[in-house]
Parts: sequence; structure tokens; C-alpha cells
Amino acid sequence: MKIKKQVEDLLAKLREKSPLVHNITNYVTVNDCANAILAIGASPIMADDIKETESITSISSSLVINIGTLNKRTVASMLASGKKANELNIPVIFDPVGSGASEFRNDTTKEILNQVKVNILRGNLSEISFIAGLSASTKGVDVSEEDSKNDAVAIAKSVAKKYDCVVAITGAVDVISDGEKVIKISNGHKMLSKVTGTGCMTSALVGSFAGVSNDYLTAAVAGVACMGIAGEIAYKLAQEIGIGTFHIAIIDALSKLNSEIIREMARFNEE
Amino acid sequence: MKIKKQVEDLLAKLREKSPLVHNITNYVTVNDCANAILAIGASPIMADDIKETESITSISSSLVINIGTLNKRTVASMLASGKKANELNIPVIFDPVGSGASEFRNDTTKEILNQVKVNILRGNLSEISFIAGLSASTKGVDVSEEDSKNDAVAIAKSVAKKYDCVVAITGAVDVISDGEKVIKISNGHKMLSKVTGTGCMTSALVGSFAGVSNDYLTAAVAGVACMGIAGEIAYKLAQEIGIGTFHIAIIDALSKLNSEIIREMARFNEE
Amino acid sequence: MKIKKQVEDLLAKLREKSPLVHNITNYVTVNDCANAILAIGASPIMADDIKETESITSISSSLVINIGTLNKRTVASMLASGKKANELNIPVIFDPVGSGASEFRNDTTKEILNQVKVNILRGNLSEISFIAGLSASTKGVDVSEEDSKNDAVAIAKSVAKKYDCVVAITGAVDVISDGEKVIKISNGHKMLSKVTGTGCMTSALVGSFAGVSNDYLTAAVAGVACMGIAGEIAYKLAQEIGIGTFHIAIIDALSKLNSEIIREMARFNEE
Repeated sequence: MKIKKQVEDLLAKLREKSPLVHNITNYVTVNDCANAILAIGASPIMADDIKETESITSISSSLVINIGTLNKRTVASMLASGKKANELNIPVIFDPVGSGASEFRNDTTKEILNQVKVNILRGNLSEISFIAGLSASTKGVDVSEEDSKNDAVAIAKSVAKKYDCVVAITGAVDVISDGEKVIKISNGHKMLSKVTGTGCMTSALVGSFAGVSNDYLTAAVAGVACMGIAGEIAYKLAQEIGIGTFHIAIIDALSKLNSEIIREMARFNEE
Repeated sequence: MKIKKQVEDLLAKLREKSPLVHNITNYVTVNDCANAILAIGASPIMADDIKETESITSISSSLVINIGTLNKRTVASMLASGKKANELNIPVIFDPVGSGASEFRNDTTKEILNQVKVNILRGNLSEISFIAGLSASTKGVDVSEEDSKNDAVAIAKSVAKKYDCVVAITGAVDVISDGEKVIKISNGHKMLSKVTGTGCMTSALVGSFAGVSNDYLTAAVAGVACMGIAGEIAYKLAQEIGIGTFHIAIIDALSKLNSEIIREMARFNEE
Repeated sequence: MKIKKQVEDLLAKLREKSPLVHNITNYVTVNDCANAILAIGASPIMADDIKETESITSISSSLVINIGTLNKRTVASMLASGKKANELNIPVIFDPVGSGASEFRNDTTKEILNQVKVNILRGNLSEISFIAGLSASTKGVDVSEEDSKNDAVAIAKSVAKKYDCVVAITGAVDVISDGEKVIKISNGHKMLSKVTGTGCMTSALVGSFAGVSNDYLTAAVAGVACMGIAGEIAYKLAQEIGIGTFHIAIIDALSKLNSEIIREMARFNEE
């Protein structure tokens, strides 16, 4: 399948170029994000003060904005870095952690989407549904985790069109769309939801791939698929042991990923 | 023993309900706290900005306040969230990390205890002794780590009465009291003190149990006992390997805890 | 060799005294720094608010300043704690993470070096070269990672003289100098660069040793050598598994280090 070969090639390119990925992210999962970026073969830099965020973005190959533990100080940095990235054609990945859970997160999500051109938006169904509600021309869309895969496809396409970006909704089946094409990924394991930050790490991986390609659909598919495959490998090793070992095995698996593993394990479904 | 059965039942209830636990905590051990909460079966949320802390508390089943790396900004959030939790009858767990070590920690501890009704207070003997000194009607109590178990019992009871809360003093033998009843727990291993954050994780576990029960004595006993048992299991596996593996094995053990293990391993002593 | 025996003795002394090490550091690698300090046998304390940093420094045996995720608030605390440490003859270790990468980091590095007497400066060749450029009487030194070991020696000596401190440049071969003597260390493995924070952990270890000795050259050599040896041990165990396991194995190895291992594995080269 064409997409599988593209993901394989992009991983090879990432490892050759080792792009610098600027993360303005939360303090809960930041260490795992840095280690996931290193494990896949890229190079992380974390910097969140307004006095330097724009210049750090300027020397980076991509920018990942994650609002997991946002505050007034870092939101200003996210906006400034996002605009700088736009100016320099550096891809922006946005992870709207907890959108829908508080007014502050909702307002910040709106502010970022209004002021920054986001290239890839990655979240779970609740978060992206909240954003779909923002963008609906009619009454707000109201989607919960229980909604069917068809709804995820509709929401991904609609949000992608509205914001002219790639949308990745991760869940039991991941749905990635640029507004026209839709790629579903059936990798991963539900044990991934038992480790904090697997979503954040996925966004960090997407940012790593976007740092070496302006084909953002493929970059998003690659990042999401790598985390899903790593989760399956980790599950096989750690299911009997526990989620501490599972957590470590995810990073192990990311560091050992290669073309053969992707070819064998990736389960893509193009619509 | 009655308390053992209650802890077993509370673990089953926690896993059925998976309560949302709001943590305003430090950036050193926050990832471990989130993963401990997930491992025991609850759901963590970390949010510390004044613009959202009250609303995040409102949707949570318990609030854990930890002053490990406090600053002016987060102390304001702790107070606001604590008051909101009181208003909504959401249990508040307070971990006064380092009380006694600086004026700022001492003042913040006083401020929280004066302005927020704390339901469970968990700390080591030095920290709770500092608080005992605050509340003593006579001259300040001055207790060091070397004090005997009898002193821990007296201090736990006295502080519990003064603040009308459950007090958990963790150490070689843990002492939990609501001011009348006293339960001692002889689980754990001294290797736990060689991993940063095992105290913070214990408070996070106590918060997880308090999220599904208003019997705060049992919730505190359950959280403290689970960490102690996990420490013993981890020690058996990792003593020869080192404290990195021991750290991961704690999370593994928490995720695999069940009624049988509690029944077999918990060592409670009711006074 | 004399230096090897000194390192062995210093490790024994560290484990006997368990010095308190105050860290004002970044939120990416802080948990690993705390666990590395515990693993080697010292005791970590993290506190970064201006309301308490000076008093926390006062009760500590050393202060480690790390600008990995600096911001205006924490820079003020670094300066205040640094001055307090100087006043009380408490050793100051400075890790200028990312110096050269942004004006804010550059300015902060200058500010710290101008206002605080730093006893040990630890960084990679790029960071220390940036500082060498600051101190050059002629036009700025411009050294990149590709420069030879001879340059590292020249830079280490020059910066050590200029700031009257010990300089540790870590890399494939580590170079430690007090401006006169030079000790090279050939331990470590390049896999260490695939885990975030191994540099930060090295500075934390150096701070641990400096907490029990005012022979800062030996303290710096001890901290750098311990990380290098731990990296080699971890590599043997984890090379086939991945960098998650390698990360954990570093902490394991630090916790199991002893005189015999140092005697057998340390590779020092005095010039």
C-alpha cells in the first residue's frame, strides 16, 4: 500500500535528518515526550518563556503546542511561537489537551486556532468534537466518546476543512484526514490509556515527522501509527508484568522501530 | 479483620468507578503521581492555573494539594480549589511536603489549614510534627524522625482532633488516625525512600480512594497500604537490580494489586 | 592512580554523609535528577520560588543551577540562591543548558557568571565554547561540536582560569580542568545522548559530590565518571532492548556503584 511505503520512507528520512522539535508542553508528560522524540530519532527542545520561545522556534524544524498544563504565561508563549512558526513556514502541531473540560482550555483553544495557522491538530474524539462544535455553521456538534467511527470520520473531515489542516483523532481506531482523504489506523492497544501522556507522546512523534516533510497527512499517519505499533509491541512484553514496564517498553519499541516492523505491523485503511 | 475487608472492597469500588482525581502538585513527581493514579484504577487530572482550577475541581471526585514545589501562583490556585472543593463536599487531601523546612512552606501550610477544610492530611513525622507544633496550645511540639512510634500515635491523634480530619503519618510503621481510632500499617520497605515521590504517590493514591468513599479513615488506610504492599513486591523483584527498576516495579505492582494480594500481604494493627 | 582512589573515597564519604543538594532546575529532567541524586547516595531538594530559595540553599550542602527551562521567575531565584550560597561558602554548580541557543539563555548565563561565584561549571562543548567566547579578550571563540579534543582542553583551561572555577566539558571524552590540571575521562557511551537529561543528571551528581568535598576538581571528576560508568553498564544490559530500558538501567547502575566498579571501570587520563 502506498501510505505504508511513505511512512517507511519518512521514518528513514527522520533518522537521517534528526530534526529539532520545539515543544511548548505540559510538565506532567514532558520527559516522556522528550524521550519519545529521541527514541524515534529526532531531537527535542523544550522552551516556554516569552523571552526566548520565538527564537527557539526559529531554529527548529517543527513546533508542538500542547495545553495539558497551560497557564497565562505559557499561553502567551504558545501564541507568539505559533505566529513565528507561521511566518517562517515551520509546521505547527496542536494538541488541545482537555478542550471542553474548562472555559480556560476552551478559550485558549479558540485563541490558538484563530491566531495561529495550525498544520496538524491531534486529539481524542472529545477534544476534536469540542472544536467541531466551535466550527459548526449550525448548532454545536455534541459528540461523546461513545460515538461511532463514522462520526469520527465526519468530524475529522469537517474540522480539517474548516481549519485547512490535517486532523488526527486517536482512539480504538485512529482517523486521520486532510478534509478529503481519510486514513484509518487499527494499531494500538487499550493499555495505552493506562499510561499518562501517550496522547502527548503521539503529538510529539507527529511533530518529529512533520519536521522532515511538508506532506502533513503522511506525517500525522506516521506519528500515530508508530505509537500504535509501539503500544502493541509493549503490550506483548508487559501485559503480565504491569503498566510501569509497559510504559518503558513503549520507549524501547519506538527506539527499535524500523521499516520491517512497520511493513509487518501497520494496519492502514484508506477511504 | 474488618479494616482489611473494607480496603479490599474500596479497591473494587475504585476500579469500578474510576474517579477523576484533581492534583495541584509539584513538577518533580507529577508524572509518577499520574501513573500511580492510573495504575490503581482512577483517572488523574493536573491543572494549576487560577483561571481553571476551581472548575476542574468541580468536575472531580477528589482534590489532592501537594506543596512540593509551591510558588505564589500555585498557592493561590490551591486555596481557590480547596475552598471550591469544600463548597461542593469534594474531599481534600493535603500533602504538606517540606513543612518545617522554610518559612514559605510553613506559612502556606498554615494558610491552607486555616482557609480550607482538609479531610485527609498525609505526611512524614517531621511534617506532621511541624503542624502539631502549630496547633499545640502550649509551647511548640518538637519531634524529629527519631521519635518513637508512640509519639507518632500521639501526634496523629492530636492533629486529627485539632483539624477534625484524618491524619496519616507514613514511616517505618504508618500511623493513621481520625482522632479516636488509630490504625497502624506495617507494610512497605525502606527502599521506598530511595525513589523520589513515593510520599507524593501515596497521597495521590489516598486521593484516589477518597474519590469513592466518604469514610476517609478507610480511604487513607487503603492508599497508604497499597503503596506499602507495592513497595514490598517491588523490593523482592528489584533489590538486586537497583532503584531504577524498583521505581518501575512499584507502578507494576500497583497495577496488579487485587483483593487476594491485599488479604495476604496487608499488615494492619488497630488500637 | 591517585585520582581513582580519591573518587572511590569521595563516593564512600558521600554515602556516609548523604548531603542535601538544592536544585533549581528544569521541569523536563527534574525527576531523573532527583532519582540520580538518591541513587548515588545523596538527598535532593527542589525549590525554585524566590520566597524560599535562599533559605533552602542555606540548609543545603550544595546548589545546582540548571537553566534548561529557565523563565524570569526562576532566573531571579537562581541569582538569589547563588549569592546566598556564596555568602555561606556552599558550592555552586552551574549547568548552562543551551547557552548559545537564544539571547535569553546567553544573557542569563552572563548574569549568573557575573553575579555568582560558580565553583563548578558543567556543559557540553558548544555551551562551554559559548562561555569561552564571552571571556575571550580578543574576538569571540567560535567552536562547534566537531572541534577536536585539544580544543576542549584549551577551552576548559581558559574558562576555568577566567572564572576561577572547575570546568567539566562532557562529550565522547570528558575534559575536566581547574585551569592548571586537566583530567580526561574516557567512560560513557554515545547511547547516553539518546536519553534526555543525562547531562542534567551528571551536573546533579557533580553537585552531590561537591556537597561533601571542597576539592571541586575531584568532585567534578567523580560526578562525570559515575555517569559515564553507569552509561557503560546500562548499555551492556539494554543495547538490544531499547532506550527506555537503558534509561532505567542508568539509575540502577548508579545505585549499585561501588569502589570495586570504579577501580575496574574508570578510565582517567591526567595531563
